[in-house]
Amino acid sequence: MEKRKKFMLQEEDIPTQWYNITAEMKNKPQPMLNPQTKEPMKAEDLFPLFAEELSRQEVNQTDAWIDIPEEVREKYKIYRPTPLVRATELEKALDTPAHIYFKNESVSPVGSHKLNSALPQAYYNKMDGTTNITTETGAGQWGTALAFAAKAFGLELAVYMVKISYEQKPYRRSLMQTWGAQVIASPSMSTKAGRKIITEHPNYQGSLGTAISEAIELAMQTPNCKYTLGSVLNHVALHQTIIGLEAEKQMEMAEEYPDVVIGCFGGGSNFSGITFPFLRHTMQGERNTRFVAAEPASCPKLTRGRFQYDFGDETGYTPLIPMYTLGHKFAPANIHAGGLRYHGAGSIVSQLLKDGLVEATAIRQLETFEAGVLFAQTEGIVPAPESTHAIAAAIREAKQAKEEGKKKVILFNLSGHGLIDMSAYDQYLAGDLTNHEVTDEDISRFLGEN
Amino acid sequence: MEKRKKFMLQEEDIPTQWYNITAEMKNKPQPMLNPQTKEPMKAEDLFPLFAEELSRQEVNQTDAWIDIPEEVREKYKIYRPTPLVRATELEKALDTPAHIYFKNESVSPVGSHKLNSALPQAYYNKMDGTTNITTETGAGQWGTALAFAAKAFGLELAVYMVKISYEQKPYRRSLMQTWGAQVIASPSMSTKAGRKIITEHPNYQGSLGTAISEAIELAMQTPNCKYTLGSVLNHVALHQTIIGLEAEKQMEMAEEYPDVVIGCFGGGSNFSGITFPFLRHTMQGERNTRFVAAEPASCPKLTRGRFQYDFGDETGYTPLIPMYTLGHKFAPANIHAGGLRYHGAGSIVSQLLKDGLVEATAIRQLETFEAGVLFAQTEGIVPAPESTHAIAAAIREAKQAKEEGKKKVILFNLSGHGLIDMSAYDQYLAGDLTNHEVTDEDISRFLGEN
Repeated sequence: MEKRKKFMLQEEDIPTQWYNITAEMKNKPQPMLNPQTKEPMKAEDLFPLFAEELSRQEVNQTDAWIDIPEEVREKYKIYRPTPLVRATELEKALDTPAHIYFKNESVSPVGSHKLNSALPQAYYNKMDGTTNITTETGAGQWGTALAFAAKAFGLELAVYMVKISYEQKPYRRSLMQTWGAQVIASPSMSTKAGRKIITEHPNYQGSLGTAISEAIELAMQTPNCKYTLGSVLNHVALHQTIIGLEAEKQMEMAEEYPDVVIGCFGGGSNFSGITFPFLRHTMQGERNTRFVAAEPASCPKLTRGRFQYDFGDETGYTPLIPMYTLGHKFAPANIHAGGLRYHGAGSIVSQLLKDGLVEATAIRQLETFEAGVLFAQTEGIVPAPESTHAIAAAIREAKQAKEEGKKKVILFNLSGHGLIDMSAYDQYLAGDLTNHEVTDEDISRFLGEN
Repeated sequence: MEKRKKFMLQEEDIPTQWYNITAEMKNKPQPMLNPQTKEPMKAEDLFPLFAEELSRQEVNQTDAWIDIPEEVREKYKIYRPTPLVRATELEKALDTPAHIYFKNESVSPVGSHKLNSALPQAYYNKMDGTTNITTETGAGQWGTALAFAAKAFGLELAVYMVKISYEQKPYRRSLMQTWGAQVIASPSMSTKAGRKIITEHPNYQGSLGTAISEAIELAMQTPNCKYTLGSVLNHVALHQTIIGLEAEKQMEMAEEYPDVVIGCFGGGSNFSGITFPFLRHTMQGERNTRFVAAEPASCPKLTRGRFQYDFGDETGYTPLIPMYTLGHKFAPANIHAGGLRYHGAGSIVSQLLKDGLVEATAIRQLETFEAGVLFAQTEGIVPAPESTHAIAAAIREAKQAKEEGKKKVILFNLSGHGLIDMSAYDQYLAGDLTNHEVTDEDISRFLGEN
C-alpha cells in the first residue's frame, strides 16, 4: 500500500455516542451555582434557559457515554467523518523529525467544528417544542453553524454578533442570513444589557461576554424561546468529543499515537473535543500524552487567570461557573481570533488544568499569523485566526523535536478555515498587525473585585 | 450496512491516468490554427507560450490515457479524492423521485476544481526549467488555484484579475497574495493590450478575454516565463477528467448510473471534467446518458453562439480556436458568476455539441441564486455563483422527473463553494440582483465581422 497523507473514515465509522469525560474524572468539576442562593444548579434549574436534554447533559457526571440521536447523526453525515491529515508538507518546511497530524474540521460546510454542537442543540430544542432560539457569536463561527442547524431542524434564530466581528467579517453575517437567521451587532440597543454598556462605553467593540448577556436576555423575554451557547459549557464539550473519537480511530489507521495533542482555546469547545477521548487513556494510566491548550497572549485566562467562581457573561445573567478566569468584565484586545476573545474557561478544562492533566501556552498574534501563512503555503488550507494558535503551538513542538533530535507525534485540531477572515491576512501581510500585551495591572483590575 | 449519504474513496483510488477523450471521438475537434498562416498548430508551435508537455497534451488525439506524474498525484492527495454526495436533503425539499448526486469539488483548499489543472500546469512548467508564469483569472477561482500550485512547485506567478472581480472579491486577491502571487487588476496599464482597451473604454470592467491578452503579453516579454490558462484548452479538460473518473467509481459504490450529467459552463473545464469519463460509455454505445452544459443566459455561446474559428482572447494573441463563440470582442454583463463570463467554448466541447453528444441550457441569474440558496439551506454548502448554474439545471431535471413521476439519476458537479462570494448573496437577498438580457443584435454585432 502506498503511503497515505489523509486517513478517511466512512459514514458507518461516525461515532454513535459522545464521550462524557466527567464520569471518569477522579476530581469532578465543581458544580455551577445559583448566583442568588449559591446552591448547586440541578438540571431542572437550567430548564428555563436550555433545552431539557441539554440541561441534563450539562450536569451528568455519571454516564461516560451518551447516545447520539439518529436524527443528529444523519445530519452529521453532511460533513462527517472529517479527514485526519498528515501535514507532510509542513514537516518538510520545518525540517523536523516530528510527525504532525491535524484533524481537519474546516471541511464542515460552515467552515468549523462548531456544527458538531449546533446540530444536537437545535435538535434537542426542536424536541422540546421550542420554536425560537438565540445565541451569541464572536468570530461568527458559532453563529453560522447554528444558523445552518436551526434551518436544518426548522427553528427561528436570532444571533448577537460581537460588533468588532460584525464589522470585520461581513461575509459571516451574510452566511447567517443566507441560512435564514437574524443577525444583530452587539452591544445593541435591543436589550437592557446592551443599552447599559453602550451608555457607559459608547465605542465599545463588543465581546463574547456582552453578546451572551444580550442573547440570554432576549431568550428570557421571548415566549417559547431558549438560549444556546457554542462553547464553555459541559454539554458543548460533550458534543465536540466526536472530533477526538474519530481522530482516535484515524490515528490507529496511521499506526501512531500522539505524544502531544493541541487545540486552540477560547471557551474550550474544540480543545475539549480533540483532547478528551485521548485524555481518557492518560487518566486510565494506559498512555502518557501531553495536552496543550493554545490561548492568545492577549486573553490569557489559562496561563495568567485565577481559578474561581465567575459569571459566563459580562452582565451576570448566567449561573456562577467554576473557571480559570480574567474576570467577567475583562475586555480583551481586538485580535482577529474573535472566537478566543473570552474571559473564562469551561469548568471541566479548568479542573483538568488545576489537576495538571492538561497544560496551557499563550501565543502572541504575530506568531500565530506567521504560522498560519506557513501552513497555508504548505498544506494549502488557509486557517482561521483561532486555529493558527494551535498551528503555532504545534510548530513550537516540532521545532523542539528538531532541536532534541527526537521523533515526536503531534496531533492538533484544525478547528476551521480562514477564507472568511482574509482581511486579517491582508493586514498581516501589509505589516499592519501588532501584538497586544496584557499587563498584570489589567488582570488584577478585573479580578480585583473578587 | 446503513444508507450512505457520501461516497468516499481512499487515496489509493485517486486515478493514475487522465482520460483524453479526443483519442476516442469519431469526429475529432478541428485543430487550432496559426492566425497568420492559417496552418494547424503543432505542439512545437505552442512551446513559446506553454510548457512543452502541456503543448503535446494539447494536440494529442491518439492516446486515450495519459499518466499523471507521481509528483502531481502526491499533491492531489492534499484534497483528493473528493466526496460524491447524495443530495438527500435537496431531494426532500423538492419532493422529487429523482436521485440527485453531486461531486463535491468545493473541498479543495482553494475552494474549486481549478486546482486539478493548476497543479500539473505548475509541475510541467517547473520541469521545463521555467521560473515565472502568468495567468488571468475571472472570478478568482483559477488564480487562487494557480497561486497555491505555483507556491507548491516553487514558481513565481503574476495574475491578471478581471477588474470587476478584483473589486467584488477582495478576499480572492488576499488569498492569492497569501500564497505569494502578484495580482494586477485587468485591464491594466502594464501591457499594450490593457492600455489600448482602457484608452478606448475607460470604464471597462474587464473580461476574461482581455485578462488573457495581458497575461500572454507579459509572458512573451519576460525571460523564462510561460503562460497558463485555467479553462478552454484541451490539456485543461484532460486534467479535469480526474473529477469524472473518481465520480464513476463512486457511482458504482452507490450502485447507480446517471441518466443525466450536468456541469456549469464558462470555457468548459469543470463540465469536461465531470462529463468526459461518462461520455466515453455513451460514445461506445454502452450507455445512453444525457450531458447538459449550464451556461448563463447573459453569455450564451453554446445556445446562441456560432461555431467558427475565433481567438481565445480579446486582443487576438492566441491561435485561432474552433469554437462556439459570441465573438472575441463580446463584453458580457457583470454577473456574479465571473468564471462564466467568457465568449467561447473549448474546441472539444464545441465539436461534441455540434455532433449532438452534449446539450446546453441557458439560465438567468435570479434562477441560479434561488437554486444556490435552496442548496445552501438544504445541503449546507453555499455554492459558488458559477456552480449555482449546475444546481439550477439539476433542479429543473428533478422537477421534470416529479412531473413525469419517473425516477431519474442526476449527477452534477459542484465546482466550488461561494464563501468568498457572499457579497453576491447579500445583493440577492436584498433584492438588488437582476437578470441581464442579451439581444440578437448584441450577438450579431460581435459576430458580424466574421
